Amino acid sequence: MKIALMMEFSQAGKNSIVFDQLNSVASEQGHEVFNVGMKDDNDHRLTYIHLGIISALLLNSKAVDFVVAGCGTGQGALMSLNAYPGVACGYCIDPADAYLFAQINNGNALALPFAKGFGWGAELNLRYVFEKAFTGETGLGYPPERRESQVSNAGILTNVKLATSKPFLDGLKALDPELVKQAVGSAHFQACFFDGCQDDDLKTFVRSFT
Amino acid sequence: MKIALMMEFSQAGKNSIVFDQLNSVASEQGHEVFNVGMKDDNDHRLTYIHLGIISALLLNSKAVDFVVAGCGTGQGALMSLNAYPGVACGYCIDPADAYLFAQINNGNALALPFAKGFGWGAELNLRYVFEKAFTGETGLGYPPERRESQVSNAGILTNVKLATSKPFLDGLKALDPELVKQAVGSAHFQACFFDGCQDDDLKTFVRSFT
Amino acid sequence: MKIALMMEFSQAGKNSIVFDQLNSVASEQGHEVFNVGMKDDNDHRLTYIHLGIISALLLNSKAVDFVVAGCGTGQGALMSLNAYPGVACGYCIDPADAYLFAQINNGNALALPFAKGFGWGAELNLRYVFEKAFTGETGLGYPPERRESQVSNAGILTNVKLATSKPFLDGLKALDPELVKQAVGSAHFQACFFDGCQDDDLKTFVRSFT
Amino acid sequence: MKIALMMEFSQAGKNSIVFDQLNSVASEQGHEVFNVGMKDDNDHRLTYIHLGIISALLLNSKAVDFVVAGCGTGQGALMSLNAYPGVACGYCIDPADAYLFAQINNGNALALPFAKGFGWGAELNLRYVFEKAFTGETGLGYPPERRESQVSNAGILTNVKLATSKPFLDGLKALDPELVKQAVGSAHFQACFFDGCQDDDLKTFVRSFT
Repeated sequence: MKIALMMEFSQAGKNSIVFDQLNSVASEQGHEVFNVGMKDDNDHRLTYIHLGIISALLLNSKAVDFVVAGCGTGQGALMSLNAYPGVACGYCIDPADAYLFAQINNGNALALPFAKGFGWGAELNLRYVFEKAFTGETGLGYPPERRESQVSNAGILTNVKLATSKPFLDGLKALDPELVKQAVGSAHFQACFFDGCQDDDLKTFVRSFT
Repeated sequence: MKIALMMEFSQAGKNSIVFDQLNSVASEQGHEVFNVGMKDDNDHRLTYIHLGIISALLLNSKAVDFVVAGCGTGQGALMSLNAYPGVACGYCIDPADAYLFAQINNGNALALPFAKGFGWGAELNLRYVFEKAFTGETGLGYPPERRESQVSNAGILTNVKLATSKPFLDGLKALDPELVKQAVGSAHFQACFFDGCQDDDLKTFVRSFT
Repeated sequence: MKIALMMEFSQAGKNSIVFDQLNSVASEQGHEVFNVGMKDDNDHRLTYIHLGIISALLLNSKAVDFVVAGCGTGQGALMSLNAYPGVACGYCIDPADAYLFAQINNGNALALPFAKGFGWGAELNLRYVFEKAFTGETGLGYPPERRESQVSNAGILTNVKLATSKPFLDGLKALDPELVKQAVGSAHFQACFFDGCQDDDLKTFVRSFT
Repeated sequence: MKIALMMEFSQAGKNSIVFDQLNSVASEQGHEVFNVGMKDDNDHRLTYIHLGIISALLLNSKAVDFVVAGCGTGQGALMSLNAYPGVACGYCIDPADAYLFAQINNGNALALPFAKGFGWGAELNLRYVFEKAFTGETGLGYPPERRESQVSNAGILTNVKLATSKPFLDGLKALDPELVKQAVGSAHFQACFFDGCQDDDLKTFVRSFT
């Protein structure tokens, strides 16, 4: 699995802490991590608004399979990512959240709080969350006897978002072009996106901003 | 402020616990609570998919000002509500979450976990969450010196959702009509919606299912 | 009620944050707060071991009615305070913990984590914890129908500690005198202790170290 | 390592859930689990007061190396266990707590809440807590550079408890004999204690109640 980590300006200084934990857990499971957001305070500036755009580009183009995002409380990232079709982003503060989201909702993104509650032990908690998010089979239901209805509802939700959203590329084109330009402007993102993108129209769209 | 509480089938048996805490806190603040989802296990059946539909109808028609929703973990409700333009739904497990969401994101909905972590003290925690969610001014920023940029980003997010979403009524019409019919089928919802709806097109749309 | 706040070296830099929240809540309830531990990194040095000694002196002499202590995770303070007869110290990470401890255990001290989980919102959470710890009647039981057995067990626990412990002053005299000397060495502690101490033997004991 | 699980009357119905998670994790690490408290609601009745007595007997006699106890909130068990010399009991609600307690405090007991916060995912959280409590080396410090001072303080705390407590057997003899009789009355406890006890005086003491 290809996993993109993306962090915004407000907590960019913690990127190496988060990346190290994610990469360590992912490597043990044979997953690859792409650090596509801000790596430090001086990196190409991104807010949670931009994270929404690049998460949707990476997931809808199949450049990556999963996105780990966040902001101070995680709520901005959460809502921003969920604004796009093809993105199903949960919120996670402990390892059991990660397991339950994987089994019940089987989404493709997580938003995490990188400032709220982030004190001693935060990097441990991140590690344990990633262990439960990225190990083992997903979509098994919880409790298991509710699997069928939970899988069914997850499928319905995907369709609901397709119904309520414009086609993804139309939505992108309706955004303020300055937002998109800033969102796709970093070398980290572009390397990951252009290398893995499996959708020519999205590739052309992003190329037009570079 | 008018607040709608909406619960799905999986935790309907806890509705009176949640309603009592919400209503008690809201009453002290002069807010009015509408209990529009399932009130017990035998009530008109709703899943978190249906909660998304009725939350969006109530908020976009200005029938209510705020929605409190949830499911077992809260994640399904969270994603389902955020699938609609005009809905900005956060996730909340403790009172500080409620305060921070109110100050930073200033959204109009909260999704809560009604089974995960719901043991002794759950009704206390609900009460304390509601106290911080529904008391005092919102949108003040946290920390306060970030107010301007946080308010700005909240406004940008609203516009992003308008850009990526179809017009609300078009989205509703693109949904599976059986979903909408079931969502709007209860007397509790209809009483709240028809009484407070300030949008004739939405009223006509819902009426067509009844 | 007289409440002593006491913090050790590892989190002394956060003393003003904690004191401000505690004092603000306590003042509203007519309680008085004594800031008897470290006020900053350069203050008279105390570890959680010393906090145990001064908490027991203040509570057993009735100089104060309640102690709020803590350390990085709170666990060291927790065990250190509970090492003494006359001290019943709970552990608290959220407001519901504070309420439940007050109703079920009705102890006279709380240990809090001042580094673990201490990020954005930590001062809010402290405030909400204090609101629930220091407002209203205590010892009411939870759930209320268990009150009688809970009050009974709290009383038994007090007696158990008296049975397993030496008389308090004998225990103090058996401690390494250097520990006691350091523990009682600050002006803040001495002011609070000598002003409020209602036990002449304890007063004489502490005086011998000054 | 030999680990004793002990639960009181209020949450006895959850014993099999807790035992299964503990035993599963412990087995993988080559630890042995003894289920010495209540196994169901009809078992020999124990309160957290009794748990304190049997935990201290098992640890001080070296019949077991570690105790996992708890009650509704865990606070009663916490204070009751810490009332005895030779017992260093922490409080744990998430896996990072377990890791930090093992590294910083290196105690020999944990008190857990079996009702507060115990909803969906509780058995998952227990499992993850046990994984971090019982895997790998302990006493390494956190952060690692504080190891020396943390190990030193843990040692000082042990000595403080020896100073403030009566000799363990004297303390036991000072307890209400009815409490001791009830505490040691179950076959599960006696099997574990008499099989592993390495202290003849304690063995004789317990034998006198059977």
